[in-house]
Amino acid sequence: MTLLDMVHSPADVKKMSVQQLNDLAQEIRQGILKRDSLIGGHVGPNLGFVEATLALHYVFNSPVDKIVFDVSHQCYAHKMITGRYNGFFNPDDYDKITGYTNPHESEHDHFVIGHTSTSVSLASGLAKARDLKGEKHNVIAVIGDGSLSGGEALEGLDFAASELGSNFIVVVNDNQMSIAENHGGLYNNLKLLRETNGQAEINFFEALGYDYIYVNDGNDVEKLIAAFQSVKDTNKPVVVHLNTLKGKGYKLAETYKEPWHWSVPFDIESGDKTVDFGEGESLDDLTYNFLNDKIKRGEKVAVVVAGTPGVFGFNPQRRQELGAHYIDVGIAEEHAVAMSSALAKGGCCPVFCVHSSFLQRTYDQLSQDLALNRNPAVILVYWSGLSSADATHLGCFDMAMASNIPNITFLTPATKEEYMAMLDWSMTQKDGPVMIRVPNAVVYGGEVAPRADEVKAMAFAQKGEKVALLAVGEMLGLAKQTAETLMNFHVDATLATVRCVSELDTAALESLKDKHKVVITLEGGVVNGGFGEKIARYFGNSELKVLNYGAKKEFTDRLPLDVLYRENRLLPQMIAEDALKLL
Amino acid sequence: MTLLDMVHSPADVKKMSVQQLNDLAQEIRQGILKRDSLIGGHVGPNLGFVEATLALHYVFNSPVDKIVFDVSHQCYAHKMITGRYNGFFNPDDYDKITGYTNPHESEHDHFVIGHTSTSVSLASGLAKARDLKGEKHNVIAVIGDGSLSGGEALEGLDFAASELGSNFIVVVNDNQMSIAENHGGLYNNLKLLRETNGQAEINFFEALGYDYIYVNDGNDVEKLIAAFQSVKDTNKPVVVHLNTLKGKGYKLAETYKEPWHWSVPFDIESGDKTVDFGEGESLDDLTYNFLNDKIKRGEKVAVVVAGTPGVFGFNPQRRQELGAHYIDVGIAEEHAVAMSSALAKGGCCPVFCVHSSFLQRTYDQLSQDLALNRNPAVILVYWSGLSSADATHLGCFDMAMASNIPNITFLTPATKEEYMAMLDWSMTQKDGPVMIRVPNAVVYGGEVAPRADEVKAMAFAQKGEKVALLAVGEMLGLAKQTAETLMNFHVDATLATVRCVSELDTAALESLKDKHKVVITLEGGVVNGGFGEKIARYFGNSELKVLNYGAKKEFTDRLPLDVLYRENRLLPQMIAEDALKLL
Repeated sequence: MTLLDMVHSPADVKKMSVQQLNDLAQEIRQGILKRDSLIGGHVGPNLGFVEATLALHYVFNSPVDKIVFDVSHQCYAHKMITGRYNGFFNPDDYDKITGYTNPHESEHDHFVIGHTSTSVSLASGLAKARDLKGEKHNVIAVIGDGSLSGGEALEGLDFAASELGSNFIVVVNDNQMSIAENHGGLYNNLKLLRETNGQAEINFFEALGYDYIYVNDGNDVEKLIAAFQSVKDTNKPVVVHLNTLKGKGYKLAETYKEPWHWSVPFDIESGDKTVDFGEGESLDDLTYNFLNDKIKRGEKVAVVVAGTPGVFGFNPQRRQELGAHYIDVGIAEEHAVAMSSALAKGGCCPVFCVHSSFLQRTYDQLSQDLALNRNPAVILVYWSGLSSADATHLGCFDMAMASNIPNITFLTPATKEEYMAMLDWSMTQKDGPVMIRVPNAVVYGGEVAPRADEVKAMAFAQKGEKVALLAVGEMLGLAKQTAETLMNFHVDATLATVRCVSELDTAALESLKDKHKVVITLEGGVVNGGFGEKIARYFGNSELKVLNYGAKKEFTDRLPLDVLYRENRLLPQMIAEDALKLL
Repeated sequence: MTLLDMVHSPADVKKMSVQQLNDLAQEIRQGILKRDSLIGGHVGPNLGFVEATLALHYVFNSPVDKIVFDVSHQCYAHKMITGRYNGFFNPDDYDKITGYTNPHESEHDHFVIGHTSTSVSLASGLAKARDLKGEKHNVIAVIGDGSLSGGEALEGLDFAASELGSNFIVVVNDNQMSIAENHGGLYNNLKLLRETNGQAEINFFEALGYDYIYVNDGNDVEKLIAAFQSVKDTNKPVVVHLNTLKGKGYKLAETYKEPWHWSVPFDIESGDKTVDFGEGESLDDLTYNFLNDKIKRGEKVAVVVAGTPGVFGFNPQRRQELGAHYIDVGIAEEHAVAMSSALAKGGCCPVFCVHSSFLQRTYDQLSQDLALNRNPAVILVYWSGLSSADATHLGCFDMAMASNIPNITFLTPATKEEYMAMLDWSMTQKDGPVMIRVPNAVVYGGEVAPRADEVKAMAFAQKGEKVALLAVGEMLGLAKQTAETLMNFHVDATLATVRCVSELDTAALESLKDKHKVVITLEGGVVNGGFGEKIARYFGNSELKVLNYGAKKEFTDRLPLDVLYRENRLLPQMIAEDALKLL
């Protein structure tokens, strides 16, 4: 009988002694490591926030008191003590819970959250709702130090400091790390506060108007309980600043904080990854080498990232090599885009590398700071396309979002050769911003690199008749298979790759009118607002029929790729069937 | 001969005595008032920043030293002393310059800017470019107190405080106002700093890592010169905090700061507006009364705005009447959306009122904080549609941006009756977020209000044959005219209003297949990613031809509406011609 077996809800935590809470913390750590080692997940953030989670639930009365976790990559302990420990200890149940908070799983979760810097804003809405309804309870926003640099967090902190006038508790989980190291002036203030045991007179939170208390032993459950008890039922906004140890209890994660922020499956003993990514050429390597070579030749390249350098293969060694040409802005995507625009205006060549889902933070900066000003910044978009990711990290919205903004050239390479040619072209042209969807797992090599004047043109892999398959980037493989399927039905289809989704290659499109009856578009993104609809519009006044394939407009959640493709009729047989009906 | 006649560039300002600078300031104020009184524009912000502008140009060496104006609604004085005074004194030249900075006008302007909170980010990019290129000059970001609450500004301030390590000057133009009153904790700190002549130990800027100096007489050109000279060529980030008087020199604007932030044309003597808006029913009144009635009945409505209450008719009296149910978050649109999501989650009914162009700040919050969580917040979008606005304030992108996000119901009322029915429905349904494009100038009244179960359905105004005109919201008038034109050619067209652009009314669309050959969509937004393309996709596999009308994907700049409509073939005769060709 473990302690966790006795914990069916937070009420059971409240009955425990400090010793039992510490023992429970160790059990929870085993659950974190078990799940993460088998299916991957966030390691360091979850390990570091176990004691604070227990203390929060010991002191506060969830779900009446409401705890909102920022980005929620530290919520495993919370999940385990709110009835979901099977999702950590029983591999058969792993797919029953997500790695993030989710109201569909538990009344103790208030939001589906996976992007950073949202908890203070969200919690302030719950607090305001409480006040308007005349209720009394505590609202607690948990936020990591890394997430503090995000605009939404800063807006929320500024608002909640003065505009609520009632109970509001912000727990700052300061583990001295973002995903990588922190960047930004406020981190110097956090450091000063840690070094002075919270006593420094210069205090970012107090400057905004918060009461402030500091807990140096942020993994000491007894001290945490005392701290939370001291602010419980406060009628003012207060910050509880915790100094926690990221990765606590797993030596490797304590020592190597960045690679153990999140991990693919691994062997707990050795730390070795148990997933084989194969050999193959890495676009990360190619990209890094290409950029670094330019810098070494004296070109004024600025590599910009927003807190997630590892996603692009910029490990610490590479960052050091890039030197002053490497700029991590912290979790501050809006600033990254605006600054990139200005770097281009100032005569440098900025290359902002960003996760597709986090690019969503920057619509207005893309539009106003960048596109309206036509500054030639380059944006490399990673993890784009259809994926089996969590609903919070989907890469299928970027084309619909950004390709409809004027003045942005949105390129979609299908092959390594196309990608490298586009990267090269984008960094020499001066016409305006260029966005490139960096190919994912599958890269179709062996193609001839397009010339600079061809990077936006549609490229015909084969010219046939009746049916034309237009494949956006990654969909080239599916298009090829569909062409083969059609050949079985004696249809010699035309096959072309679409390299640019922000402009139409009208000459190529016009050339299809002669011999074709059906034009089929395939894209790795939502169909709504995407490329295919533009083709449907283009041929709307013609005799050509158009079929658009891509993703339905929906938030899928860890949907296996084969299911996702089937549900969207993204299978050669299905597409061929639909086409044949129209011939 | 005026002093301004002698000022052809900032070099001429540098030669002046303090007395001359003060005289010049008065001439500049006349220019501000002349232009604004004749064609409208920003009054208070421009009047308050005249002396600071002169001092900046006296001390620094523009354009080598680079001054970046936030939102740039305080740039008139800058424009006048950089060769553009005819744009203020000569009405024939008024359309030659914009009310915002613009690099196409002058080398002293570095960005086209009209959204708030961007200057620090943009300036930091210029500073970083300077450093990478090994150049030496000053980079100055000017930002108003109101703009400080925006996430992009806060991200930029945090970054520039610690990551540049070189010259960076932030001039905070503190006129103690946003557009309306300020909201947020940092304003208490600004107040404390003003009250202590900048000596308070709790200092928001110092907490981030800035050096800090305070100028209490922010309209005293001599003191401003001394302050700027003291920071010129600094090798650190420094904030120069100016206490300025918004509206300085025009008594009405000094006294009534909010209505004189921006004004339509007016009589300088009396302050009376010289534009007649006609009588007519105001949707602002209807909306306010509807919301206030609900609140008076005890409903937990929360009216949320982000710094621009006047846009929606929430004058100070109405704000007071709404009381705790009125929440101005300051310029913090991201926070507004996230908080609205949480207000709905907490059982209240939030109604976030927002200018279409500023909604662009919130794509990710709409997607992740709101839509993914399906919380039933209501967003009222104002100033949508095709317009003759500046390139920075266009309302034609909202549908393409937001209607392709899953789970958002995007409604487009054409009539007052539709709008009120939709507002009512949106506040009672619990299915998820609803966005309503509040009709602009023209409201077609006299229609029957749709029932609650009809608010998303297409509504047929007339059923004909051959040609079906589908009008999104405001385009109903044009569609009616087009139907009349077609009737001249003996085509009895079908006419329907599209009330919802985020879902297709497939039953209604299917019903068109029988008797029609051409379906025409009309929308007041960019065609790319918009509603019409979805119709083209829907009918892509059918015999129906589809023509989409709307705006080209481009940033138009103060383009007169008649030109805009003509260039997009949005004229009854043109549309009818195109349709007849396909019959």
